[in-house]
Amino acid sequence: MIRALFSAPEAAWPQYHAALERAFDEAGLKIVLSRAIARPADVDYIIYAPNDALTDFSPYTGCKAVMSLWAGVERIVANPTLTQPLCRMVDEGLRAGMVEYVTGHVLRYHLGLDRYTCATPPGWDRQVPPLARDRTVGILGLGALGSACARTLAGFGFHVVGWSQTQKTLPGITCLTGPGGLTHLLAEAEIVVLILPATPGTENLMNADRLAAMRPGAALINPGRGTLIDDDALLAALDRGHLAHATLDVFRTEPLPENHPFRAHPRVTVTPHIAAETRPDSAARVIAENIRRAETGEPMLYRVDRTRGY
Amino acid sequence: MIRALFSAPEAAWPQYHAALERAFDEAGLKIVLSRAIARPADVDYIIYAPNDALTDFSPYTGCKAVMSLWAGVERIVANPTLTQPLCRMVDEGLRAGMVEYVTGHVLRYHLGLDRYTCATPPGWDRQVPPLARDRTVGILGLGALGSACARTLAGFGFHVVGWSQTQKTLPGITCLTGPGGLTHLLAEAEIVVLILPATPGTENLMNADRLAAMRPGAALINPGRGTLIDDDALLAALDRGHLAHATLDVFRTEPLPENHPFRAHPRVTVTPHIAAETRPDSAARVIAENIRRAETGEPMLYRVDRTRGY
Repeated sequence: MIRALFSAPEAAWPQYHAALERAFDEAGLKIVLSRAIARPADVDYIIYAPNDALTDFSPYTGCKAVMSLWAGVERIVANPTLTQPLCRMVDEGLRAGMVEYVTGHVLRYHLGLDRYTCATPPGWDRQVPPLARDRTVGILGLGALGSACARTLAGFGFHVVGWSQTQKTLPGITCLTGPGGLTHLLAEAEIVVLILPATPGTENLMNADRLAAMRPGAALINPGRGTLIDDDALLAALDRGHLAHATLDVFRTEPLPENHPFRAHPRVTVTPHIAAETRPDSAARVIAENIRRAETGEPMLYRVDRTRGY
Repeated sequence: MIRALFSAPEAAWPQYHAALERAFDEAGLKIVLSRAIARPADVDYIIYAPNDALTDFSPYTGCKAVMSLWAGVERIVANPTLTQPLCRMVDEGLRAGMVEYVTGHVLRYHLGLDRYTCATPPGWDRQVPPLARDRTVGILGLGALGSACARTLAGFGFHVVGWSQTQKTLPGITCLTGPGGLTHLLAEAEIVVLILPATPGTENLMNADRLAAMRPGAALINPGRGTLIDDDALLAALDRGHLAHATLDVFRTEPLPENHPFRAHPRVTVTPHIAAETRPDSAARVIAENIRRAETGEPMLYRVDRTRGY
């Protein structure tokens, strides 16, 4: 008898309950899934949303793994009571959503869509946009999500330059690393996308200096994490016209406060953390596969490296 | 000595002159390219823009082919003086531009971008869009441009249904034909894209009945030809809320008159015929290749079938 505790805010249960039961069935796993288990020591696995009230993992002495429903685990990775193996979510649905959001907003900037869709259209002033092959897009972060976006954008013909903490090799993508690589990317790209995890090393990565190193007139898209950007420095770069526009999906405080200067800024598009969301059906299959692996002694997928932070 | 007449409005010459000379050189062709040739009978090839003043082709008795710089040849296909072989333009640059425009606007509708980019953003009301895999896109026209768009959209996971005059087979695309096929497509697709040529058979294809056959709340994108749509029927379908929105790039009269009801309609986005444009570099290579073929007796590419009209 395997016991799994579903530890996430109320609203997640109806979304995930049936999907998890189905995925466990498909994987041939006999699991009792509950929202509460009387004796913490009886819990074998914790299926966990990082915004849940549970933050003390020490009573779960028999727990073999904590499986995050989120891709971003920065809220719990440094929790000293969490000594069990931790897995983050790498979900096909989340990846697909991120690719769609990033490609949609990159094409929006590339084609100048706002010029036609908003406010006062420009009449018959024909400005034919350049082709993707004449445009460079920079992607900071080449993990599962960033590399999927890079591949799709390269498929349109964009020249894609990627940057990551460790050197990657991706066909058709210029892969850079280190401070020099980042400066090079920022000087080249007309559109820059941030898909890095939140770690101490990425906090305020886009500070005043790095924003100033971007091409004049460039656009910034952040579907990654709010902490990647120094908000005041971004506002200053937009206000002085160095950057043309920013589209932001993630923020240091969410929901973004009503009176935050991003809200009404004419050069900022705010989306309410919708770029990519875990989809219950595909996420449930990932969790079932990881429990199957743990039970048969195979290495689990997407184990978090505590020293790296993701 | 091969003589080619460049017969297009004034503004096209500086764009095309150098590109054509370069392409002829690369193809090893010795061609004298001129904007005027004293004796029409001396002209071997006419490189032609369908909006040029030349409409009487009968003096060009030695002309081996007329090569259109445009993909759409409806203005000249029925010209009784044009008895020479006619080739339309199938340009890699034009294809790339069409794929970028169509994908950009399909993703704009799919992700609901206008909700965030225009006017009054909705605050933190989180409506996560469905994934592409949960959405059907219909494409009318599966020629070089339509099939390229279909392939790219299918790559995102969209369920793509295509319709064409003759039955096509494209991997991963549901290919339909005939009136029944069109009705089926219109009933299924949440986003419909028109990429058909202008022929007597496609005139007013999207009439009141076909617009009524579309899914309630669907969106229509027309980067094809203005004549494909019955304008008044489209306005009526938008006004009664049956269709949610239309993005139109081509019109019966261009530039679209200032006072046309499409201009200020809250459910219409007008773009000034910028979806796809022939790019001089790649188009010049197509023309050079076709002259090379004609000179060596090989069949020319993209010959227009006068009975089909394209």
